Amino acid sequence: MPLLDRINGPSDVRTLDKAEKKELCNELRDMLIKNVSQTGGHLASNLGTVELTVAMLSSFDLEKDSIVWDVGHQAYSFKILTGRRERFGTLRKSGGLSGFPYPPENKYDSFICGHSSVSVSAAYGILKAKKLKGEEGKVIAVIGDGALGGGEAYEGLNNAGESGKDLIVILNDNGMSISKNVGNIASYLTKIRNRKSYFSIKNFTSRLLKKIPLIGKPILKLLTKFKFMLKYSIYRSSTMFEDLGFTYLGPVNGNSTDDLEKIFERAKSIEEPCLIHVKTVKGKGYEKAEEDPSLYHGVGSFDIESGASGKSGESFTEAFASRLTEAAREDERVCAITAAMEDGTGLKLFKEQYPNRFFDVGIAEEHAVTFSAALAHSGLRPVFCVYSTFLQRAFDQIMHDCAILNENLVIAIDRAGIVGGDGVTHQGIFDTVFLNSVPNIKVYSPSSYAEAKEALTEALETDGLKAIRYPKGKEPLNTDFSDYEKQGNCRLKKSGGKILLVSYGREISEVTEASKELSRQGICCDILKLDVIIPMKKELDLSNYERVFFFEEGCRQGGVGESFAASYGVKNFTHVGIEGFLPHGTVTELLKQTGLDSASIVKTVTEVMK
Amino acid sequence: MPLLDRINGPSDVRTLDKAEKKELCNELRDMLIKNVSQTGGHLASNLGTVELTVAMLSSFDLEKDSIVWDVGHQAYSFKILTGRRERFGTLRKSGGLSGFPYPPENKYDSFICGHSSVSVSAAYGILKAKKLKGEEGKVIAVIGDGALGGGEAYEGLNNAGESGKDLIVILNDNGMSISKNVGNIASYLTKIRNRKSYFSIKNFTSRLLKKIPLIGKPILKLLTKFKFMLKYSIYRSSTMFEDLGFTYLGPVNGNSTDDLEKIFERAKSIEEPCLIHVKTVKGKGYEKAEEDPSLYHGVGSFDIESGASGKSGESFTEAFASRLTEAAREDERVCAITAAMEDGTGLKLFKEQYPNRFFDVGIAEEHAVTFSAALAHSGLRPVFCVYSTFLQRAFDQIMHDCAILNENLVIAIDRAGIVGGDGVTHQGIFDTVFLNSVPNIKVYSPSSYAEAKEALTEALETDGLKAIRYPKGKEPLNTDFSDYEKQGNCRLKKSGGKILLVSYGREISEVTEASKELSRQGICCDILKLDVIIPMKKELDLSNYERVFFFEEGCRQGGVGESFAASYGVKNFTHVGIEGFLPHGTVTELLKQTGLDSASIVKTVTEVMK
Repeated sequence: MPLLDRINGPSDVRTLDKAEKKELCNELRDMLIKNVSQTGGHLASNLGTVELTVAMLSSFDLEKDSIVWDVGHQAYSFKILTGRRERFGTLRKSGGLSGFPYPPENKYDSFICGHSSVSVSAAYGILKAKKLKGEEGKVIAVIGDGALGGGEAYEGLNNAGESGKDLIVILNDNGMSISKNVGNIASYLTKIRNRKSYFSIKNFTSRLLKKIPLIGKPILKLLTKFKFMLKYSIYRSSTMFEDLGFTYLGPVNGNSTDDLEKIFERAKSIEEPCLIHVKTVKGKGYEKAEEDPSLYHGVGSFDIESGASGKSGESFTEAFASRLTEAAREDERVCAITAAMEDGTGLKLFKEQYPNRFFDVGIAEEHAVTFSAALAHSGLRPVFCVYSTFLQRAFDQIMHDCAILNENLVIAIDRAGIVGGDGVTHQGIFDTVFLNSVPNIKVYSPSSYAEAKEALTEALETDGLKAIRYPKGKEPLNTDFSDYEKQGNCRLKKSGGKILLVSYGREISEVTEASKELSRQGICCDILKLDVIIPMKKELDLSNYERVFFFEEGCRQGGVGESFAASYGVKNFTHVGIEGFLPHGTVTELLKQTGLDSASIVKTVTEVMK
Repeated sequence: MPLLDRINGPSDVRTLDKAEKKELCNELRDMLIKNVSQTGGHLASNLGTVELTVAMLSSFDLEKDSIVWDVGHQAYSFKILTGRRERFGTLRKSGGLSGFPYPPENKYDSFICGHSSVSVSAAYGILKAKKLKGEEGKVIAVIGDGALGGGEAYEGLNNAGESGKDLIVILNDNGMSISKNVGNIASYLTKIRNRKSYFSIKNFTSRLLKKIPLIGKPILKLLTKFKFMLKYSIYRSSTMFEDLGFTYLGPVNGNSTDDLEKIFERAKSIEEPCLIHVKTVKGKGYEKAEEDPSLYHGVGSFDIESGASGKSGESFTEAFASRLTEAAREDERVCAITAAMEDGTGLKLFKEQYPNRFFDVGIAEEHAVTFSAALAHSGLRPVFCVYSTFLQRAFDQIMHDCAILNENLVIAIDRAGIVGGDGVTHQGIFDTVFLNSVPNIKVYSPSSYAEAKEALTEALETDGLKAIRYPKGKEPLNTDFSDYEKQGNCRLKKSGGKILLVSYGREISEVTEASKELSRQGICCDILKLDVIIPMKKELDLSNYERVFFFEEGCRQGGVGESFAASYGVKNFTHVGIEGFLPHGTVTELLKQTGLDSASIVKTVTEVMK
């Protein structure tokens, strides 16, 4: 019987001996590789944190201590060991386990963590609350070296440095975030990672000072001063973490439970907040993932023997990025900016061909937008490629640094709309609302690869702030709009009906399918497709329609449909959009669940028109 | 003839000799004190940067070099010396100079800077653009020690450390941001500020090594290793700025043009990006401001002899904060959080009475929200008090850390609506739209002190995420709603008319005034006042009204009016809100300009109903 089958909670890990823990780690790795090869998900980062998870569960008591995982996609082993082993096969599936820590799922998930760089702030809050409530316990934040580049991590460290002895920050340093790490903090980590253990310097000083009797008096005086300075500069200030108020411990081999447990015990005895620098190997234990951790950061299902495929095939991302690379050839002002999503946003080719005009700023969306705004303000044509869900983090910068002066900047919003398996923390369904408050911005919502490319061409050739939003994955079924008539910022397909169906982006394909079925049922509908969704401008008179239906793959409240109804003065209006947050599942499942698949559209229209 | 009268641009400063520069600084100070005592504005920070401004204009050539001021309210001297002396009396007045750098106003304003911590990112972008365009020139970011606590500053430093020799960051360290500085970076700065000049350590090492012949061989060997380590630890890593890739210079007396010019010359010769640590005195040269720099951070007009008054009098801020302090007495779970706005959000009393439950996190809105969410998740009742315009910076954290799990957190949105003199970068007119995309949140918009207090009571007594928005300053004229009939989340005042006027918050007072005048003209209007603006819920049937008018002191596009029209299915609808950005001016002027004062409302209604 495998050891894993006996582990039903954190306390079961604490009773294991050293050899058993090693065996447990092996079993966890096998399970991770086997399961993720079937369900898809984040693999490389989880293979790196197996020993770290086992060691934390051994050294800390989760009945009183709390662990906060930063960007929780490294917490699969933690899920397995905290009572979710049997459900692990349901990961990221509809109704199944979330791909990220999710407190309603399990009492040991102490905070929601899908976005990066929040763990120190959250851990500090949890600790302060424990103290105010008079409760015991330590709080441990586990943050990756990539997430450490995000500004909020620094804000958190800066504040938490005064938190006293019960805060432990574990810096899980695998030398990369999602793709190869950038910024000077990364090279700084490499430097301290590679130097001799921090505490050996202390021994060295003692050795030196033992020899002092041999030295003349003036030298002794100098050396005493020297010792003071050394103490000051090396002991107190040798890492920036100490400047921020933390005791720095490490670096330590993060793939050895033994070494980890030792350093955790030491950290527990220190009366200051600690930062433990842990070196792990991303992809550890699965050769293919160790060789190419970026590829195995997030994967679909794959064959374990032959490995995952690097080719993602045609997609909106690829179509957009290829046009962007062409545009850079045509116009030397065009630059591309990404926040640690070079692969995800398809910018590899751009980077190869125009390295001087490619900027990966790391997980730092705020900086990315201000930096892009400054490039634009200086006469260049930057395109910032970012996922919809992460763009939220730069909202103030869009408003303040880009929109007030209407800078010539293009924001390429990838993963707009429903994203599927990543679930509630990653759905790209809110940009349509929050961008609606941004004056001057023009937001395109293409429905096909061709339209995505055209939108980019137009955005780069005209002045002002633009955004182009496109979904994850492939083109939908219906992308031929040749029988639509262009009307300003939208296109109308006339069928002579008294019913109008309105939509934009990928969703227009579902609406088109529905209109075919409705037509078969004798219900004739016109279709209005919005090419530009913000600002909303009335382009045609709709007073002849008996009823207008609006379907949007985005947040209903405050969504495009509301602006549409207000601008067009629509009287009999039915608005179907996404209500609140949306969990994980396939795009198909989620479209159905939200009433946005073609069958649901047919049903809504027939019921309302009855 | 005063020296100042001869300065019509940066080049005029460069020709002055040492004595003249001193005289210029004196004249600048006099002008600042005299003018700000009349116009109101930011005084203390500007008094601190007089010499810094003169020295920068002396050492750098603004025809090719660029200066980016972080939170530009320290740039008044810069405005005066760059050709805006004669217009300086119009500062913050309608049609006059902006209180912040504003590129359309002057070619030497190289970037828009009203919000904090963006200067390094912007400077790096401007420098990269110069390089790509093959232009010469250095870029200088001037960032305060308070702004350095913001995460984006760190993101910028982390990325800009690789920028090469033409980037200079000037850390303007006056030991406080707006109020007394917090966080460990602040105490770290105090530490390095107070230690001996950095470069003297180098001399010390040389002195030590000269004595080596006197020492035996083993010691020599040890000392050689020592030297290497010292070089490594002191020269390379003695400040966290060097960890981030900058050469650290300083600290230097920032109120001496002479010392500053020397260090600027040195920085110009260094082939790496530099960070120059400059110590200035906030309020320098006006005794009252030196004694209480917080009070003179932002002031209204005041008498120079007797000084500014610390008492701000009754205000929404004060009413809300006093109820919050009471609530903390009644319920020990209640905590207050601010991001460097202790004074601005009226939390002084709370801090005095409940220091353990008061958290000033510095200029770090992202951390503030995640930290508050963690307190809430742990069972406490945090209230985060923040200005509307700065809340934008924590949008992702509101969505991700608070809204998904609907944490019991109250966001107190101060300065909601038109703010007046601070102008385009600070108007609180967008929260009504961006919060509309946040599922689960309930947003109150009280119209009087009493309602602000009631809203807080209700928000703390019920579960879930709440926001309460209230304007800067005093209650408006009409705050008696006793003749309104409560209808769910809103209140209706019936007069038997066929016209309905709808509004919320402070604006209801203007609407009330207008209805009185309309009544005198024989036009009878009912008034609907929304107490809760998000989520929008239809509370009553409006089909009997011939026309519905909606007036909102907030962004029109995507605003509350659109959600209202959609939810209530209003047919004949006139929506007046704020179109795009809004410059500085008095609240009265801006209400008139946007069609939201009572006279404009009367005009709109009479014209539409004609």
